[in-house]
Amino acid sequence: MFGRSYFCGEVTEEAIGEKVTLKGWVQKRRDLGGLIFIDLRDRTGLVQIVFNPDVSPEALSLAEKVRTEYVLDVKGTVIARSEGSINGNLKTGKIEVHAEELTIINEAKTTPFVIADKTDVSEDVRLKYRYLDLRRPVMFETFKMRHQVTKAIRDFLDGEGFLDVETPILTKSTPEGARDYLVPSRVHPGEFYALPQSPQIFKQLMMVGGFERYYQIARCFRDEDLRADRQPEFTQIDIETSFMSQEEIMGLTEQMMQKVMKDVKGVDVTEAFPRMSYDEAMSRFGSDKPDTRFGMELVDLSETVKDSGFKVFASAVANGGQVKAINVKGAAANYSRKDIDGLTEFVSVYGAKGLAWLKAEEDGLKGPISKFFGEEEQAALQSKLDVSAGDLLLFVADKKSVVADALGALRLKLGKELELIDQSKFNFLWITDWPLLEFDEEADRYYAAHHPFTMPAREDLSKLESDPASVKAQAYDLVLNGYELGGGSLRIFERDVQEKMFSVLGFTKEQAVEQFGFLLEAFEYGTPPHGGIALGLDRMVMLLAGRTNLRDTIAFPKTASASDLLTDAPGEVSEAQLDELHLSLKIKKDQ
Amino acid sequence: MFGRSYFCGEVTEEAIGEKVTLKGWVQKRRDLGGLIFIDLRDRTGLVQIVFNPDVSPEALSLAEKVRTEYVLDVKGTVIARSEGSINGNLKTGKIEVHAEELTIINEAKTTPFVIADKTDVSEDVRLKYRYLDLRRPVMFETFKMRHQVTKAIRDFLDGEGFLDVETPILTKSTPEGARDYLVPSRVHPGEFYALPQSPQIFKQLMMVGGFERYYQIARCFRDEDLRADRQPEFTQIDIETSFMSQEEIMGLTEQMMQKVMKDVKGVDVTEAFPRMSYDEAMSRFGSDKPDTRFGMELVDLSETVKDSGFKVFASAVANGGQVKAINVKGAAANYSRKDIDGLTEFVSVYGAKGLAWLKAEEDGLKGPISKFFGEEEQAALQSKLDVSAGDLLLFVADKKSVVADALGALRLKLGKELELIDQSKFNFLWITDWPLLEFDEEADRYYAAHHPFTMPAREDLSKLESDPASVKAQAYDLVLNGYELGGGSLRIFERDVQEKMFSVLGFTKEQAVEQFGFLLEAFEYGTPPHGGIALGLDRMVMLLAGRTNLRDTIAFPKTASASDLLTDAPGEVSEAQLDELHLSLKIKKDQ
Repeated sequence: MFGRSYFCGEVTEEAIGEKVTLKGWVQKRRDLGGLIFIDLRDRTGLVQIVFNPDVSPEALSLAEKVRTEYVLDVKGTVIARSEGSINGNLKTGKIEVHAEELTIINEAKTTPFVIADKTDVSEDVRLKYRYLDLRRPVMFETFKMRHQVTKAIRDFLDGEGFLDVETPILTKSTPEGARDYLVPSRVHPGEFYALPQSPQIFKQLMMVGGFERYYQIARCFRDEDLRADRQPEFTQIDIETSFMSQEEIMGLTEQMMQKVMKDVKGVDVTEAFPRMSYDEAMSRFGSDKPDTRFGMELVDLSETVKDSGFKVFASAVANGGQVKAINVKGAAANYSRKDIDGLTEFVSVYGAKGLAWLKAEEDGLKGPISKFFGEEEQAALQSKLDVSAGDLLLFVADKKSVVADALGALRLKLGKELELIDQSKFNFLWITDWPLLEFDEEADRYYAAHHPFTMPAREDLSKLESDPASVKAQAYDLVLNGYELGGGSLRIFERDVQEKMFSVLGFTKEQAVEQFGFLLEAFEYGTPPHGGIALGLDRMVMLLAGRTNLRDTIAFPKTASASDLLTDAPGEVSEAQLDELHLSLKIKKDQ
Repeated sequence: MFGRSYFCGEVTEEAIGEKVTLKGWVQKRRDLGGLIFIDLRDRTGLVQIVFNPDVSPEALSLAEKVRTEYVLDVKGTVIARSEGSINGNLKTGKIEVHAEELTIINEAKTTPFVIADKTDVSEDVRLKYRYLDLRRPVMFETFKMRHQVTKAIRDFLDGEGFLDVETPILTKSTPEGARDYLVPSRVHPGEFYALPQSPQIFKQLMMVGGFERYYQIARCFRDEDLRADRQPEFTQIDIETSFMSQEEIMGLTEQMMQKVMKDVKGVDVTEAFPRMSYDEAMSRFGSDKPDTRFGMELVDLSETVKDSGFKVFASAVANGGQVKAINVKGAAANYSRKDIDGLTEFVSVYGAKGLAWLKAEEDGLKGPISKFFGEEEQAALQSKLDVSAGDLLLFVADKKSVVADALGALRLKLGKELELIDQSKFNFLWITDWPLLEFDEEADRYYAAHHPFTMPAREDLSKLESDPASVKAQAYDLVLNGYELGGGSLRIFERDVQEKMFSVLGFTKEQAVEQFGFLLEAFEYGTPPHGGIALGLDRMVMLLAGRTNLRDTIAFPKTASASDLLTDAPGEVSEAQLDELHLSLKIKKDQ
């Protein structure tokens, strides 16, 4: 125990009568009837210390100087509390420690916010005083869980023969993908390293090197404009194997996540994770990462309404689009016209030009568009949408992608709003059969949907150049409760296939060789079939810890403008430093 | 086993009669008497595959196309080898696999060097084709050991309640210490992040945050000119604790290293590690990281020779210097005058102006300077240096630091040359009682011997400003076989002491606040006493694996000019990338 008898939160009635040494922080001091009571806190919890003139007048006198967050060393005897003063909410609530000696190890100014789980101070203040924020028990518990998650993963992968190998942070910039963070070289004027967006190339080279089973809990970097759930540096559980099939990699990942759930949450996830093709997920949930903890699935009504008198529906279908709806069960009474106007505005963000609605009453579907549907159509709608009286039906008619995005987002919003989601559930889901490529209309070219090293489905290989849009990838994403935990794929391991892929992505032969020549060459020296997966650790911890802010899972995170409010990074550097790096600034320093 | 029955190196006689599927690389193919023999290799070892026309003419015919490093899938039956063909050097040497089906998974060009432990190809070629270099079994074994070392450390620290917490890679530049790698910010024009030289500040802030026990296997960065045993990015085992004494931290570290030695090397290191003060180490070994696997200690003869007729000795002592010697036991006959001239040149690199010598014969000490020593002095030399006939005595007379450096280096050189070092020994040693500060004559200022956060010895605190050179640090280094494994210290945890330290280092109050204001402020909110240690993982693995090249312990290392010969990093970036970072180059691109 290194200089103390117990952690504060672990002094229980079994220690009654013992002389103990405790160290920690003052959570609270109360003076009562000539005694002083101090709640002493460390990372394990609280224990009550009593200063009594009959035990030690010296300790009592010193205790008068003690304020909140002072650091104390207390020696005393563990005493059972009287029946009436037992605190059932506290693990140490049946005892108290009668102080015989007190040392004030360090003092504390008044903290800018109270050290407690519940706080309404702004996040900026929490980040500036992160060292105080981390004292809040809920924060420590999150990082303890993060530790437990990585421990479970490491133990599992070690047991399966995976080696933890570190890959470089100072690597080469590759224009494909997100924007790189660059590091100027002092030794090579005008040249730069890049921080890795993932260890992708290196893990593949390790497979060429015969390592067969590699993992790393790897730091990755992306210099992108940040959204709420993005950080400039993030951590991924990075796994690569040789000679394994897609099924085997998915099975291994399932076992790993089952161990995490068991070790960290005490939850048995014994069943294989359900699987869904990308097409099915988009069709049923309007999302490639569906939250399957509740229903309210998207129902395709194009066939039903294509000849209806409602021109918006009919023309959407005629133009190759879709009409889909969700049934918000029993919600007809909860949503006024004004509320529905709000929902219409919500879906407009996703490109939907309108949101049609019907309410189901005992005698049929009512609403402004009900008049357009004949008896037969009404019956079909009722049947396909499984309608009961009191339901609210919401329709979007548009091109396929807009319908999916708009209704997918609306479904999620309503699911949360109506509290349809069972927060105790952990719904894992595999999404498979991804498209290999995405066409970008603006850039007029294809991009890799995952990355340029993803293996096309064997049966689609011949279509790679003739019909790229139709080619499926041997790729798989793991989804948990509507969040993408991560994804993986089998990789191309043959030079000619990789060259074809680069060509489809618009690389000339020369460009491909200049950027990835070493990889193409490596493929010629006996490269095994290989593949892997990468899971986002920050997000995984966020979901398991029941947090909603990614920054709460990172000890020293950055703000949306990629600043560290604690150390004030980034910052200015000296002219001498820039000179050594052969750089000059294009802006005035006082800009 | 995921698609195979066994790893190649693990098919033993217990599998005789089994139908197996094996996958791996062709180490060697031999054609003999109508049969083809292939040694199939994976990361576990080799197994012999036999292609026989009586078993499968198809497989035999395909095997004719097979070349070294092809990737194969072989199905066949495990057969006992006949008595005469058993290979005792191979774990699988009692069996062979008679191939029934062969699939060539991938082909291979002729590799630029043979995949074997012994190689005389240049390191540059090995680094360019690192993916082939990693196939050499000795390389895989090193990375397997590295994995085992980190696993043992993680398991130990987990058991002691230490949390694995990640600290930022994008941090703030601090001018104190080595040169930082900088990362320009796109969002904050003219500002830069720095890559951390260590997580020092963050681990201390976690202690302020009440985490109490933290560790991380942390990547660190230094943009320094590289020596053979330095890399621009390296990995340290980074540990910090609160409320522990120096003794407790050292004890914990010993237990951790004992577990590493047991788990990884099967060696029981049950005794506590010996300890030596910095002064004693310098005095006895001329080194702050002595290799104690052999003797040949430095003996101070200043008192004995200060009045001798040999003016070089007498004046060295008179000028405040020292005369010290080492006794190279039994080596008199091995070293000619010319050899000793070579040694003299060797010590001159360390500033020694000469190397005096004597050889011990049956009738006394002989050599050019023997005439200067009377009978009494000769007897004293013989006694103090424990001389026997045949010994070679080597003397350096100079100021203290030169004597230590020159004789310390000479001792090591001779110890290796004469094979005095028992390579099976693992001699751990603590060096304690370090000076807190070092005076740099050129810069005319003090620098922190460890870093500016090291706690001075309590009893020396009052001398911090009046006599800085005499102040000892509460610091400790762990040495293994003459290499510094790492070091640690108790940290300053009081604002006034830290401010005094910055002042001694030449910071104005304003500079201290500008650079470390957040830390000084943190100390005012109830900071616990804390301390820790950081051990170099790359070097630890190098020593445990018996390697001599640090780069062999890093999967994708950099050269002495900080280049990656495989991916060709660093490299040029586009003007557009520089524009986004508000930078321009001060050199022409074709320079």
